[in-house]
Amino acid sequence: MYPIPILQERIREAVEALDIPNTPPTLYEPIRYILDMGGKRIRPLMTLLAADLFGDLEEACSRAMPAAMAVELFHNSTLMHDDILDGAPLRRGQPTVHEKWDVNTAILSGDTTLLFAYHELAKSDPERLPTLLNVYNRVVLEVCEGQQLDMDYEKRTHVTIEEYVEMIRMKTSVLLGGAAELGAIAMGASDADVRHIGDFGMYVGIAFQLQDDILDVFGDPNAVGKQVGGDILAHKKTYLLIKALELANGADKDLLEGLLAAHDTDPNEKVRQVTALYERLNVLQEAQRAMDAFSVRAFEALDRVSAAEERKAPLRALARQLLVRQH
Amino acid sequence: MYPIPILQERIREAVEALDIPNTPPTLYEPIRYILDMGGKRIRPLMTLLAADLFGDLEEACSRAMPAAMAVELFHNSTLMHDDILDGAPLRRGQPTVHEKWDVNTAILSGDTTLLFAYHELAKSDPERLPTLLNVYNRVVLEVCEGQQLDMDYEKRTHVTIEEYVEMIRMKTSVLLGGAAELGAIAMGASDADVRHIGDFGMYVGIAFQLQDDILDVFGDPNAVGKQVGGDILAHKKTYLLIKALELANGADKDLLEGLLAAHDTDPNEKVRQVTALYERLNVLQEAQRAMDAFSVRAFEALDRVSAAEERKAPLRALARQLLVRQH
Repeated sequence: MYPIPILQERIREAVEALDIPNTPPTLYEPIRYILDMGGKRIRPLMTLLAADLFGDLEEACSRAMPAAMAVELFHNSTLMHDDILDGAPLRRGQPTVHEKWDVNTAILSGDTTLLFAYHELAKSDPERLPTLLNVYNRVVLEVCEGQQLDMDYEKRTHVTIEEYVEMIRMKTSVLLGGAAELGAIAMGASDADVRHIGDFGMYVGIAFQLQDDILDVFGDPNAVGKQVGGDILAHKKTYLLIKALELANGADKDLLEGLLAAHDTDPNEKVRQVTALYERLNVLQEAQRAMDAFSVRAFEALDRVSAAEERKAPLRALARQLLVRQH
Repeated sequence: MYPIPILQERIREAVEALDIPNTPPTLYEPIRYILDMGGKRIRPLMTLLAADLFGDLEEACSRAMPAAMAVELFHNSTLMHDDILDGAPLRRGQPTVHEKWDVNTAILSGDTTLLFAYHELAKSDPERLPTLLNVYNRVVLEVCEGQQLDMDYEKRTHVTIEEYVEMIRMKTSVLLGGAAELGAIAMGASDADVRHIGDFGMYVGIAFQLQDDILDVFGDPNAVGKQVGGDILAHKKTYLLIKALELANGADKDLLEGLLAAHDTDPNEKVRQVTALYERLNVLQEAQRAMDAFSVRAFEALDRVSAAEERKAPLRALARQLLVRQH
């Protein structure tokens, strides 16, 4: 698994070395600020590990780093704008850009980050650039569509499990899949391998998002690092809630709908009652089954990639690390 | 001059034919809405006319249309976001996107338009794409920097003429220059010709912006189509105001600063007094001199382009049309 810490260090250095201008500071300081918040840098790591399947580590870094940085910058631009959309005051315990500066700054700096991502992507091998650009464009547009669907679904009373899975696929998993595709393309991998490694990233992403839904309710509060039941209190349409609404009958259905309509219930009591209902309806098991199914699809896709088995080990390790059960 | 109406028709058709998806409608309808508002489509016209210098009209359309559409889409994305930044309720007499929908929609649809521009640009000849992408990225990042400088200058009490010209160069003229550069690059023009035609577009853009400042005060209200003196009432730092602040002394200086500090003066009276001061200080002549100097530079740059003189005629006509004196 040794490539992971090496690549993480390379990514840290590359983010540090991004040639973000200094003036006007009001435009570029917020970009440095959000990048310096860190984060796990999973997406660029996925790009470099996918590239590493098809060459040695040095070649992977030199060929795929522009795409890795583009993906990380795009991700950060969505954070700046999503925090405005969500009215979020904090990110990783620090004020969000629109809180520390203002909404106008967060809009314009977010736009600039979105554009700066292309500035990085354009440093790729010119021969591979047209293909990289097409895949990158497809992916980032799908992410915007996913974000819009998420906003649309918040206003709807009924969302199906299929719609929900498609929304999280677009909003979060497509970028992880795209990150992997870009790494493979940068190394000149075959179309089939690009597809398989993209599927791997995408299915890992969906499984990860389902795990996120599960951990919000059934996770260890210390390990999760946020309030248990936050999604329940926000009436967020998660896999668990959608499945529960689908399965509940009679008294359970009335109880659940009553809890969702009530805004004056004691928060702890609401979380306790909805969680008890989730347990009665076995939605945890349903969600775990779905998550496992996507994990299996991810590993099957990785199996299909025509690279030496030992080169796939770090990607397996990354997936296992992301999909560790904390419940 | 016959190519202009032909190319305008081609641009209209190409905008119509943009493969903007239908779903989610909440994301894509605002894009169609703002594109359907029309506008003069000066930027894509500049791209196609620049391309037409280096080949025939059909070749120019087929090679440069992706870049022309990218420039037009980028421009529209900035309109969506700038209208939020400015809190503008109307554009071309219709509700702005954030008014018709909401701010979140305008942010996300604007982002999507920004990304969609790259989707169009990526349809360019793969061989030319890396160069096109680099120029495009440089230009759009400069536009964001210019927009930020504009916001920064609004908060400052003192801005020099040099700073102001550099700000309008970045905010508005660079895109017109870049539009021309992209057209030339798409046709495989030499580096020198790309530079000259880019300078032409940029200087036309600066002259046009200075004319805009002049017309706001000294234009025919019917021809200008907006309230005369709007910039004065908004205390907007225009070429005229900056120059007046630079030139005014003694009683004139006190009067001007007093008018800028006062928020209870009758609007018509304020416009009348500031305009009288502008006349006394000859700032109209100063602004016209600056505008003429940039026009001259524009035509000098066009002269340097190594294309047949008769092929340059439509670009001269376009510049003259943009820089017509309505005062």
